[in-house]
Amino acid sequence: MYEIQFGVPMSGAILNCINTRLDARTISVLLRHCEPKLLFVDTLSQSVALEAISLFPPNKSPPVLVLIQDDHDDAGGSNSSLSTVDSRFCCTYESLVEKGDPNFKWIRPKSEWSPIVLNYTSGTTSSPKGVVHSHRGIFTMTVDSLIDWEVPKQPVYLWTLPMFHANGWSFTWGMAAVGGTSVCVRKFDASTVYSLIKKHGVTHMCGAPVVLNMLSNSPEIKPLPNPVQILTAGAPPPAAVLSRTESLGFVVSHGYGLTETGGLVVSCAWKREWNKLPATERAKLKARQGVRTIGMTEADVVDPESGLSVKRDGSTLGEIVLRGACVMLGYLKDPNATNKCMKENGWFYTGDVGVMHSDGYMEIKDRSKDVIISGGENLSSVEVESVLYNHPAINEAAVVARPDEYWGETPCAFVSLKNELTQKPSEQDIIQYCRAKLPHYMVPKTVVFKEELPKTSTGKIQKFALRDMAKALGPSSSSSRLSRM
Amino acid sequence: MYEIQFGVPMSGAILNCINTRLDARTISVLLRHCEPKLLFVDTLSQSVALEAISLFPPNKSPPVLVLIQDDHDDAGGSNSSLSTVDSRFCCTYESLVEKGDPNFKWIRPKSEWSPIVLNYTSGTTSSPKGVVHSHRGIFTMTVDSLIDWEVPKQPVYLWTLPMFHANGWSFTWGMAAVGGTSVCVRKFDASTVYSLIKKHGVTHMCGAPVVLNMLSNSPEIKPLPNPVQILTAGAPPPAAVLSRTESLGFVVSHGYGLTETGGLVVSCAWKREWNKLPATERAKLKARQGVRTIGMTEADVVDPESGLSVKRDGSTLGEIVLRGACVMLGYLKDPNATNKCMKENGWFYTGDVGVMHSDGYMEIKDRSKDVIISGGENLSSVEVESVLYNHPAINEAAVVARPDEYWGETPCAFVSLKNELTQKPSEQDIIQYCRAKLPHYMVPKTVVFKEELPKTSTGKIQKFALRDMAKALGPSSSSSRLSRM
Repeated sequence: MYEIQFGVPMSGAILNCINTRLDARTISVLLRHCEPKLLFVDTLSQSVALEAISLFPPNKSPPVLVLIQDDHDDAGGSNSSLSTVDSRFCCTYESLVEKGDPNFKWIRPKSEWSPIVLNYTSGTTSSPKGVVHSHRGIFTMTVDSLIDWEVPKQPVYLWTLPMFHANGWSFTWGMAAVGGTSVCVRKFDASTVYSLIKKHGVTHMCGAPVVLNMLSNSPEIKPLPNPVQILTAGAPPPAAVLSRTESLGFVVSHGYGLTETGGLVVSCAWKREWNKLPATERAKLKARQGVRTIGMTEADVVDPESGLSVKRDGSTLGEIVLRGACVMLGYLKDPNATNKCMKENGWFYTGDVGVMHSDGYMEIKDRSKDVIISGGENLSSVEVESVLYNHPAINEAAVVARPDEYWGETPCAFVSLKNELTQKPSEQDIIQYCRAKLPHYMVPKTVVFKEELPKTSTGKIQKFALRDMAKALGPSSSSSRLSRM
Repeated sequence: MYEIQFGVPMSGAILNCINTRLDARTISVLLRHCEPKLLFVDTLSQSVALEAISLFPPNKSPPVLVLIQDDHDDAGGSNSSLSTVDSRFCCTYESLVEKGDPNFKWIRPKSEWSPIVLNYTSGTTSSPKGVVHSHRGIFTMTVDSLIDWEVPKQPVYLWTLPMFHANGWSFTWGMAAVGGTSVCVRKFDASTVYSLIKKHGVTHMCGAPVVLNMLSNSPEIKPLPNPVQILTAGAPPPAAVLSRTESLGFVVSHGYGLTETGGLVVSCAWKREWNKLPATERAKLKARQGVRTIGMTEADVVDPESGLSVKRDGSTLGEIVLRGACVMLGYLKDPNATNKCMKENGWFYTGDVGVMHSDGYMEIKDRSKDVIISGGENLSSVEVESVLYNHPAINEAAVVARPDEYWGETPCAFVSLKNELTQKPSEQDIIQYCRAKLPHYMVPKTVVFKEELPKTSTGKIQKFALRDMAKALGPSSSSSRLSRM
């Protein structure tokens, strides 16, 4: 997958990395939407890919399939047998590369504005949105992040952030730019991470706060040979997790970005004088998303109606808007969605809600009205709701985030049942129903039954009120291990 | 001067920083060439600026003059009196700023290709060449250098490299981008540098190898509180200077660039395994200019006739050519000079001669046929020759570089005298003659009298042969201290 970040653009094609945690149905929808010519499939994703292809209608031709067989498997992942390749694959990746022309001249993009990647995001609506970035945008993002994270030459980078997450926030290319060593893993847990840090002399890694939590809560904590830089985003790192992680020798940086920006474009730039503050005060400051990076022209919090900046008082809510070189070209085949978020003068409306502090640092308050961020994965509540609405017993449904010590958030469903029911479903019944139709991480961990869901005067469900209720339930239990990372 | 790097572009104007070591005549030529509306003059350059203006012909209107009076003079430079401002200045910088509108909106350039700076280079010919860079080029150069030199956030940067040298290799803006502290000096010597390092906790500085030499040869060497990064360019650092400097706790990085690239675009990227080599071997490797930085698309050494890459054998000479985002827009009002060096597909022909090593690292062998680099200043031998040719007793003249332990190189003049002379001039006579007409650093330190200068079959003076002769003279004496830095 790391090689493909370079080989695909250099061959003149556009790269689309698919989230390996998605189910076959969703993958099939994405493939039919972007119509790839070639699909590289890792051994571990073999069956889900073949199932996704089998869901293609007869009039749609599926992509040619290439199997990536890797016998250098450092941690996790089994590699059953190199000899048996399903006949639906045209060849293996290695045999394809062997047949290549060593004198092949890279194909230069027609323009710096030519697309280089497509990355799907569920965003706030249930329809898949394909974010397209240009060569120029990705170059800027890549150098921007190297400067902002102060990445030195020849770092040793552990891939705890999946490469399919906006190309690992563009660090796939960033690591090449600084001569970095990439330590790749298919699956990991705290024990694996600590042993890889020791084995390879890891200096840098990225991950959602859930990774910090995993590392600092593990019974397998090992002393770090040297400080390790961790860049986190996706949700503000909870103060307790932050101080626990830093006490172990990790140096945590915090930023904010979206698939639409290709990586982190707002960064909690740390001031030296803040080191003198007590730990709780430091954690509070570090939990803020921060200020724009130098690859961006402007970052602001505005009133979505007037477009004017909100008061810098740390409490007036507004929409986070961004402008600059790292903003996407637009959504694939979706001019409506593109026009909805890309406004005059290059402003990108994120849909995330935040406040601006008096020192110019922004903080996300209600990341967005709908999105739930579980273990660093953005998941659309609307998509989960659409499944719930198909349940024969359910009248109304709304899914919001419930705080979780381990995942950050988990989906919590509020449902009202139909009146004429002879037998009412249980919480487990509804969870089981969703499991059959949704990827594991999107399945609600909690189902709350209500007589009626709270509504606005115009009939809209008040998610804000439900979020308060979900919060009042306390953190959801976190018995499940990090099986899906 | 540091503030002006921002204020001038933000006001929609183009910035031209003039070398404060130039004489009034040259400054006058430059001012008439670029026709500025406003000229900011530091107290120390007051008299030379006024003299340059007095040389304007009556039909040319001079710029409005603003005097920069600075009473915060950390090191060197006297600030006679704040009350007496010559009536030819319209006002002082501080009073101009005071009159400004605090709500002034920055003027955005019409396009990213709009010019931001003009920087004069003497280059290989005697006519002033005004290098024009775009906002886009300078942005790329700035981020490129931060990544290549691995500059962390909040460095403390000592300005041993003048800001008028290609805007301090674009670190004027680079330091702002990483929240750096700029420690500015008008003049310095080793003692000043060591005390500023201690006083301000300096972490980074740039300079020609002559600065390294000054620091490592000084009787005032003081132990460094922490390692200090030095980035050097302009000439390969001599091995002895390099190892002496590094033994003191300085960490030396070496690169290559031209005014035409806005900063360093080739960098001697250091490989960890080289640390195991003996010091002399390390110095040899570090003296090579290196590989392209990521802001550039390509850097090569080519046969200037065919345009094809030379053999990667470390010995075949060719011209260094560069292609990428940091190359200038062109020379101001000089399409001929622009077309001469900017060729098809964006290739910039540097005029510098080098070799390519088998590992892809380039090394300048004969930096250019004409340029002499003395104390980091490029000086045009043609310009010195044109003065010599005006001497009544001189028949032919050619100026080449003579190695110098202190300055790197000094100008060495080879002259043949006219036959009919009754009294022959002495070496000192000719040096005195040049002093009256040239800035100090361009005056030949050596004059060699010849019956005839060596020529090619087509009648061109063989500078290559003269350089060998100058080298055979041994290093020129270096009694003079670093008075002109």
